[in-house]
This record gives sequence, C-alpha cells and structure tokens, in this order.
Amino acid sequence: MNSFGRLFCVHIFGESHGNGVGICIDGCPEGIPLSADDFTADLARRKSGAPGTTPRIENDIPEILSGIYGGYTTGAPISILFRNENTRSSDYGHFAAMPRPGHADFTGCRKFNGFNDPRGGGHFSGRVTLGIVSAGVLAKKIIAPVNIEATLVKVGGSTDIQDKIKEALAEKDSVGGLIHCRISGLHAGIGNPFFDSLESVLAHILFSIPGVKGVEFGAGFSAADMKGSEHNDPIANSTGETLTNNAGGINGGISNGNDIRINIAIKPTSSIGKEQQTFNFETQQMDTLKAGGRHDACIALRIPVIVEAASAIALADLMFAKNRT
Amino acid sequence: MNSFGRLFCVHIFGESHGNGVGICIDGCPEGIPLSADDFTADLARRKSGAPGTTPRIENDIPEILSGIYGGYTTGAPISILFRNENTRSSDYGHFAAMPRPGHADFTGCRKFNGFNDPRGGGHFSGRVTLGIVSAGVLAKKIIAPVNIEATLVKVGGSTDIQDKIKEALAEKDSVGGLIHCRISGLHAGIGNPFFDSLESVLAHILFSIPGVKGVEFGAGFSAADMKGSEHNDPIANSTGETLTNNAGGINGGISNGNDIRINIAIKPTSSIGKEQQTFNFETQQMDTLKAGGRHDACIALRIPVIVEAASAIALADLMFAKNRT
Amino acid sequence: MNSFGRLFCVHIFGESHGNGVGICIDGCPEGIPLSADDFTADLARRKSGAPGTTPRIENDIPEILSGIYGGYTTGAPISILFRNENTRSSDYGHFAAMPRPGHADFTGCRKFNGFNDPRGGGHFSGRVTLGIVSAGVLAKKIIAPVNIEATLVKVGGSTDIQDKIKEALAEKDSVGGLIHCRISGLHAGIGNPFFDSLESVLAHILFSIPGVKGVEFGAGFSAADMKGSEHNDPIANSTGETLTNNAGGINGGISNGNDIRINIAIKPTSSIGKEQQTFNFETQQMDTLKAGGRHDACIALRIPVIVEAASAIALADLMFAKNRT
Amino acid sequence: MNSFGRLFCVHIFGESHGNGVGICIDGCPEGIPLSADDFTADLARRKSGAPGTTPRIENDIPEILSGIYGGYTTGAPISILFRNENTRSSDYGHFAAMPRPGHADFTGCRKFNGFNDPRGGGHFSGRVTLGIVSAGVLAKKIIAPVNIEATLVKVGGSTDIQDKIKEALAEKDSVGGLIHCRISGLHAGIGNPFFDSLESVLAHILFSIPGVKGVEFGAGFSAADMKGSEHNDPIANSTGETLTNNAGGINGGISNGNDIRINIAIKPTSSIGKEQQTFNFETQQMDTLKAGGRHDACIALRIPVIVEAASAIALADLMFAKNRT
Repeated sequence: MNSFGRLFCVHIFGESHGNGVGICIDGCPEGIPLSADDFTADLARRKSGAPGTTPRIENDIPEILSGIYGGYTTGAPISILFRNENTRSSDYGHFAAMPRPGHADFTGCRKFNGFNDPRGGGHFSGRVTLGIVSAGVLAKKIIAPVNIEATLVKVGGSTDIQDKIKEALAEKDSVGGLIHCRISGLHAGIGNPFFDSLESVLAHILFSIPGVKGVEFGAGFSAADMKGSEHNDPIANSTGETLTNNAGGINGGISNGNDIRINIAIKPTSSIGKEQQTFNFETQQMDTLKAGGRHDACIALRIPVIVEAASAIALADLMFAKNRT
Repeated sequence: MNSFGRLFCVHIFGESHGNGVGICIDGCPEGIPLSADDFTADLARRKSGAPGTTPRIENDIPEILSGIYGGYTTGAPISILFRNENTRSSDYGHFAAMPRPGHADFTGCRKFNGFNDPRGGGHFSGRVTLGIVSAGVLAKKIIAPVNIEATLVKVGGSTDIQDKIKEALAEKDSVGGLIHCRISGLHAGIGNPFFDSLESVLAHILFSIPGVKGVEFGAGFSAADMKGSEHNDPIANSTGETLTNNAGGINGGISNGNDIRINIAIKPTSSIGKEQQTFNFETQQMDTLKAGGRHDACIALRIPVIVEAASAIALADLMFAKNRT
Repeated sequence: MNSFGRLFCVHIFGESHGNGVGICIDGCPEGIPLSADDFTADLARRKSGAPGTTPRIENDIPEILSGIYGGYTTGAPISILFRNENTRSSDYGHFAAMPRPGHADFTGCRKFNGFNDPRGGGHFSGRVTLGIVSAGVLAKKIIAPVNIEATLVKVGGSTDIQDKIKEALAEKDSVGGLIHCRISGLHAGIGNPFFDSLESVLAHILFSIPGVKGVEFGAGFSAADMKGSEHNDPIANSTGETLTNNAGGINGGISNGNDIRINIAIKPTSSIGKEQQTFNFETQQMDTLKAGGRHDACIALRIPVIVEAASAIALADLMFAKNRT
Repeated sequence: MNSFGRLFCVHIFGESHGNGVGICIDGCPEGIPLSADDFTADLARRKSGAPGTTPRIENDIPEILSGIYGGYTTGAPISILFRNENTRSSDYGHFAAMPRPGHADFTGCRKFNGFNDPRGGGHFSGRVTLGIVSAGVLAKKIIAPVNIEATLVKVGGSTDIQDKIKEALAEKDSVGGLIHCRISGLHAGIGNPFFDSLESVLAHILFSIPGVKGVEFGAGFSAADMKGSEHNDPIANSTGETLTNNAGGINGGISNGNDIRINIAIKPTSSIGKEQQTFNFETQQMDTLKAGGRHDACIALRIPVIVEAASAIALADLMFAKNRT
C-alpha cells in the first residue's frame, strides 16, 4: 500500500506523466510554522540538472492544498500537490512489448494485470518521491534538534564520484552508489524490541525508495565477520556514550543515544541508453532494446535528500509513539 | 509494538525468565491441518544443544491454547504458549548497575524507565523468537508451494564454520555469521511499488530478529559498485525468467518470478564470558565486566529457521493482500 | 485520524474555505472503468439547492489527480480534488470568541489549541464528505451486485418532510431527521465475531458523518424491550433466509444473507439563524449569538447518499478481507 | 480481526470449550502497579450466578503470562489467560444441522466454511469478553481520574428489572435490556473530526460486544425529532460546561468536557429453552428446535462491566494519540 506510519502518517499518490504527484500527511501536530519557502532547499537537492541526472527539468512547485492556516499547521491533514509539466509520453509506448531489464515494466504489468500507467514508469516513477521529500521537510521540523545528514560517499565503488559519472555518461550506461546517513542528537529509548525495532522501521521506509537494494546499521555486514569482544561498544559514561559505534547507535532495536549510522546501497538506474537484451513479447524471443526516455545516469546523486526525508518521517512516527503518556 | 502484519497478523509476548513466551496468530484461514507434531522439526532447528549454543536447554513444547478444532484451524486466533522451565535468574542481577556492552541492558532501561524485566534479557530475549518460529510453521503451509530455505554460509568471515566456533568458545568470546535466504516458487506480482515494497516488508521483519544488522537483496551492496549494463538482468522468456539475478527476484518492489535472494548479517552475541569494559553506574566510572548467564557463542547458528519463519509470515501477509479480489 | 479501511483505504483532506477538499483512495483494484461522469449522480444527490439546504452553491467538479489511465483504475492510489469556489469567509470571524452551541467551534479550538482553520468550520465542514461520496462511487462498483439504498424517512419526527422543513426555515431554525439504509444482495459470511463485527465497522464509518448521533441495526433499540422468542428470526430455508429480520441481517457480527437494515439518527444542524445563548470568551459571560454564515436547515436531506457511500466503503474493505485466500 | 487499538492495542483469543480464553495487551506504559487482585471486582461483576444468568459457573482466575515484573507493568505485552474448566460440550452437537435462530451458528459456519469450533459458540462465546474486562481493568487505571459507570437501566422495556427476568425464566425465554454509560472527568479535546470521531471509536468497540444492536450518544435517536434551538446545548462558562447535554458530551467528534452519555441496546439472549422454528439442514425443511446448553436469560445483566471496559480501552487509545507531542 501507499501509506507509512501509525501516528505521523503519509499517503503518496501520483504518476510520472499524469496530472501530478503528491502526498497527504496526517497526524502532524498543530502550530508548526510552514510556508512554501520551507520546501525550496530540500526540493532543490532532489532536483535534476547536474551532470548524471535526467534532462527532464520540472519546476517542482509544491501547492499546499490543505492543513495550513495563517502560516501554521492546523492539525488537519496536509495535502501537497506537484503538477507534472514537462512530460513526453511518446517515449514509453513500446515497453509493454519489450520490458526493460531491471525495471518495473514487467512486474508492474504482472501485479496490475496490464492496467498500470506505463508512461514514464507511472506510479513507479522516482517522481513520486517529491511527496516524501516534502513530508520530510515537515518531519525534520518535528524531530528537531535531531539532525539527519545523508551523503553520497561512493559511486561505482569509488570516491571519485564525478569521474565515474562521466564514464557512465560516455558509455550511455548508468552507475550505482553508496549513501551514508548519520542521525545525531537522537536520545536513548526510541524504537522497540522486536517488530518495530528502530532498524526495522528505518529499513522499511528506506527500502521503499526506488533503487535501494541494501541497508546496514553500524558495522553492518562487517559485524558478521567480527567477534563479540571486537563488536561490542564499551559504554564510557552515564549518558551511554560508547567508545566505538559498531552498533550504529542501536541496541536491542532501541536507540542508545549515540549517532545512528546507516549505509544504503543504490543500484544503477535500470534505464540506460546502451543496447540491452530482453524478451520481446510480440515476437516471443529475446531481442535488442535501445531505451529512449530521459533518465538519470546516477540516480544515487538525487537520493541523499530522500534518505533524510524517509528517516525523518520514520523517526517522527516513533517519537510520537514514545511520547504517548 | 509487538505485532506484524495486516491480514496475517502475529502478536508476540513473553519474557525469558517469566511464565513463558508465546504468540497469538490472527487472520489464519480456516481448514489448515495443524497438530503439535508440525512444530517439531522447525523448533528443533532453533533449539540449543550443539556446540556454540547456550547450555540452557528447554523442552520447547508448544501448547496450542486456541484456534484449532478437530485438527484444523478454525479461522479464530491461534494462541501458542511455551512455558519457561530452565530458568536461573540469579545470574542477571547486576546488569542494571553495569550494562553489558552491545546488549539491550542500557537501552531497555532507558526505554522502559527501569521497569523492564531484567532477568535473562526479559522481553528482549531471543527466546521470544519461539513464537515467530511457530507462526512460521503455519505461514509455510499457507504459502506452499513457495519454498524458503535459509542457511548459515559463513561464521566470522569464513566458511569453515565449526572451526570459527571452537575458536570463539576457547576464547570465551562469540562470533557473527552470514545467512543466505532463498525463496523459490514465488510467482510474479507480490509486493508494492513504494512503502510496502517486497524488500521493505521482508527487511522490516528480518531486522526484528535480534542480532540482525544488515539486509541486502540480490547483488545488494555490490550493486552500488556496478553499472546498469552489468546489473540489469536480461529477461529470457515469457515467464520473466532472467539470465542473471542481481535484482534478487524483485523489481520495483515486486517479485519478478525468479528466486528471491537475501543476505542477512548477524552480529556476534553480545554476552560473552571474556572480560569487557563498561560503565559502572554505581561507582560512576568505567569498570571491568565478566558476564555470567548462559549464552550462545554463535547465535547465528540458530537463526536460519527464524529467518525462514519471518519471511514466510511476511509473504503470507503480502499474498493475502494480493488475493483480495 | 483521517483514514478508514485496511485494504480499501480512504484518506480525506481539506477545509471548507481553503483551496479545496479531496480524498486519496488506496487499495482499489486495477481494471475498474471510471470517468468523471460516474460521479455526477451521487454528487448531485449530495448537493445543496433544494429548500432546506444551504444557499452556498458549489459546482463540485471532481478532478481526478491520479490512479486512472485510459479510463480504468490502474491499481495505484486514486486522488480526487474538489476546488472550493464560492467561499465567503468573513462570516465566521467571531466564532472563536463566541463558540456556536452544538458546533465544533469550542472542541476544535481545544483539540487543536486554536490553530484550526475557523473559516466555514474548516476541516470539520460537511464539505469534506465530498470525498467520501466520491470514494463511495468507486466502492459501489466494487461491491456490485450488492445494492445500498438510503432514504430520509422522517424529519422532526414526522414523515411529512417538506412541511417540517418549511416550518424550520420560517423559524430560522433547523431540524433533525431519521435515515434508513438497506443493503441487499450481500451474501452470508461478511464481518467478524468481535472487534470488526459488521455492526462495528459500519457504525464506525457512519458515526464519522457529521451530525450522526445514533445507529441501530434491525430492531435496534426495540430489541432491548423484546423477548428472545420474539426477536429471534426463524430460519426458513437453506440459504439462511429468515421469516422476520429483527437482527438486521447480522448474527454474531457476520452477515446472514438477509438484508442489512440500519437506522441512523441525524441531529438538527447546529448553525441556526435564530438567536441562541452561548458563552462569550471576551466578556467572560453568557451572551446572545445570532449566527451568520450559510447553512442547511435540514442537513439530513443531503446525508442519504453519504450514508450509502460510507457503507459501500466499509463493505468493500470487509469483502476484500474475506477474499484473502 | 481480533484486535482493537492503535497505541493501546488488545488482541483477544480463545473459545468457550477449548483450553481457555485470553487477551494480549500491547502498548501499555511501564510502571503501572498491577496484581491479580486488581481484577477481582470487575470479573465478579461479569460473573454468572445471579438469577437470570447461566448456571455454568467458572472460577475466572486470571493467569498473567507476561508483562508484569515486581508488581508493575514492564512496557512489554501483557498476556492474560483464563482456563476453561466447567465445560459440557455434548450439549452443542446438533446445532450445525439445526442452527439456532438469532445465534451465530449459521453465520459462523458460512464464514468459516464449517471449520469453526461449535462447542458453546466457540470463539463467538461471550466468554471471550473475559479478556476485554481484564484489559479494561488496566485501561481504567491509565485513564484515571476519568471515571466510567455503566448501569442496566431497563429490562424488557421496564425499570422493574427483577420481575421481567423472573417472567422470562418462567417462560424459558430470554429478555433484552438497555444500558446507560456515563463517562465523567474526560477533558475537552479527545477524538477526531471524521473517521476516528469519539462516537466512531466508542461505537466500534461497543458494537463488538455480543448482543449490542444499538448505540446512541446524548439525545441520540431523539435528536432526529428535535429542532436546532432545542438540541443545541448552551455553553455556560469558560470550561465549556453546557446547560443541557443533548450532544452527550461530544461536538464535531471531539469531547467537550461535559459527561459523555451513551445508551446501548442489548438484544435478548438468542439461546432459549422455549421451542422455536428453524431450518433443519438434514431434513431440508423447517423444524422445531428445543435448545439445550446453559444460557443467560438476560445477558444484559452481565454487560455493564464489559461496556465500561470497552469504553476505557477506546479512551486509553485516543488519549495516547492526543498526547503524542
């Protein structure tokens, strides 16, 4: 389904080439100052335009449909709409017959029995993350002074990010990337022992970001290679500060007051200009596909702000649950 | 909270040294044959006894409190209770004053303001996974012929598993492990584009298993290093079979009919016999801790069956949602 | 919160005098034909214009923002927006100081600490039911051939409805009404034994309609006066048809195949032109209020179609849950 | 499903003649003193024994399986089990062939395709309300000093309650009743404008109590006959106190600080000793049924404490949501 959260709830909607995309945010407390300007910085970080991002440029102007009065949240649902403008749908007609490898063309068709909107990926489009970034702006205000900072640390396995992107562009190919997210200022006691562990809830929303294929906390996969005496973080003082942070700030599913550290693996954009093999459902045999459309050579460039927004949404929800009494 | 699922819902309860642990399963369809014998194999796989597992031996006899009549599920909630028998609570008294590094002693105390049951980890105990394994037995029946197989592939970074465990035991230390899970026979179309993507839902429940610190699908973290032309899996025939499986059987959050492939990183058990540094809240300075209690040197040994159960629970829930019309 | 449903989920938003009101519908299956024309009949039934309804006339044109492609639902969320046009907000300025008796002026202010939008009732406005009627159009298609018919059977205690309304208008007063709803064609087996009994789920959504103060099924409150031998409905044939229908088509929380019969009590509109006593928060004493604004003398006139929509939404959700396997 | 609540969540399980019935309570804050004695008074009020109640006598001893340590709630789920002792299942064998009119025999069979436990009504049994009463004990502590008081005000349409019951017993018949519930001390601001209005949430849980067929707030069904000038409650002071209470303490779905007033209609017990007509599925024609089993002539006698518990559970959940920030 298209909802996340129990107390701070977000509901997304929209398609890449339809009327627009948006989000409905429910459970936001009243009295938070919010104006269209508040969205500018984060939306700009998500925007295309830089080398390695799609040539499709959208203005991405949020229209706040509800929930704000006199410059403050009212406590009622906040609905935000982004109209689509720069659409060029003719590019996508043939993907039903020849589904792009690595893309949702085939699975979308199977899930929705061929009724899904194929234009620009339809509801599968990364454009739907505009709503998530918007809700993140609000969530960041709610969880302040907790601070979330996500950065792209590697592309194609290298820290020399621009070179890797140039290389991919030159080859009409795409390239994956690794994002690191650090959450600081979160006090101890957020999260739950089992099903809604802090890792569970953060991973849930992070894996909903298109392109994410791996999530690890603290030492993560390296922890599988370690001994307890290496991995355990010695507690150094009464606030729970630890000398190392292999746990990524989480023990038993609950924040321990140290920084939360998350690594997120982003696969390369599946849509590439380079020729690829796929099955042709019309001829019923494998065939060569040369994809049109306009795409990001490195979608990972645009994802850090989405990671931040997603994390903020999850934290707002968990912090509300903790505060219930 | 202690619940998972929207249509196939499980609710866990219990503590390590209280009366027992258990699970309440709601939304199970009527007419599924179920007897106490059905649990034997999976519970045995979770059991301790082998080298590297805790010396605490429990009989782990499930008592089905409700929801079964004449050998079949009735459609009403199925509640299953495991009494605790072999408890030795005196071992745990001093962990409030000197919280074990890497353990939930400190965070549990912060979350529950000191009211949590400290004996044997209380509700944080891995013993609570008995309920998850039980619900998994039922979920596996529901999702058949989908098959889930999880195996421990590495311990301490090596495939020579028994040696690594012996080494850890000799050093009164513990060691982490890597589990691989393969789900075969799942048809295309299960999962959702965003918040309840197949990765999101599986990762959510997998990260609720104590000790899991990383989850990746298909190529996972390696995908961050790859180019699209390498990562994209060419579709080879009309059923959607792909020549490679870097996507781990999931595109756009939805199963594509190929095997689902998941890697899960398990950290080393935090409780070790070896001396460790931690903060002493009585003396208000760092101190040396030598933990008593009975623990697993390699908890990863007992987790594959829990991974299978958790995955089966998540799939049952998603498959029910898909079938709604 | 502003959501209803577990599988067929609706999320409402909007204010009376803001940009608009709307609904986001999630969980609608793909492949259902839907066009703007489909909404015309039900929206017209909700519309004002007849004697006894508000002089505020809105065009109520639904804009489908997402979820439809080529005339069919796609399986993605369907978001529908109604712009506000005929707003006259100056009418409402003084209700913060002198809350209207029977209205949400006082409670809205207490719940939202004064940040709620006071114009035209803000998010409390009956205008928000536009979204519910829209979702009902879709839900009715989903549950067909189940048929729902709600009618206003009494106003002010009398079946002579137009006379009672004229009387109220002449007195600048308002008047309540009684609505009967009959659901036919629902097969046996829908609903649940306890918390999500058919009565529970229907009453939940019916009591969310502004103005509803009582809901009863079958004999309802009369059942409290009856003996078992009178109330029990003799089963007459193998389909479960009963000779009487005191149960209103529901036994043990589950439909029995007979018509579902519901009575719904609608209180008189709280906003009236007639002078009333209320507390003046500026002078800190009781005072006389003469309310402006534009209101319905008998809001019950416009509610039958909302009752139908709400019932259809609840049934779609319950029927999806029943179909899960 | 068998769960209620978003933050204070209860999950019920069990059957009348199985191993037992119980409840799992999740989301209860830590630090609330709780012992087995706390349940005595409310469980006694629910118990049978008085004239008009079933001759089946159970000890109803709660066994707290989890979530309590040192006499206080720990924050972990609290699971409570009531063993069944006084079962006499042979009484119920023939109801599959001849379903009792007014009972869930027929609908249970249709919903669960014949797999439901028929003994003593199985999961449909009023015995399942033991769990609700237990959770109510805890919920009442949470919402204190809010006070809930439910009383049986009429039986068979008369305030002469004992006479009506004697009459029913003499005729081997049963009789319905009317319960009034008053919630005092609830501050203004609890509830929501639409789907989770205070009326919606209370009605949802009240209609889950077996036998409830009508719920009204304040003037309720009388409101349908009134004019606005009669129904509107004049606000008399700055705390929102009103001169009348036709709204039952709720405006716009939100508490206004006055007493919440609810009337609940209980139908007569469907199981009666008197002969009745029903369909015989073996002979395929209508037939005379003389029901055995042990039943309450006036189940309404035992319901007030369940109404209180259900209301307390709903309020605890809504109050937690209100407190989130």
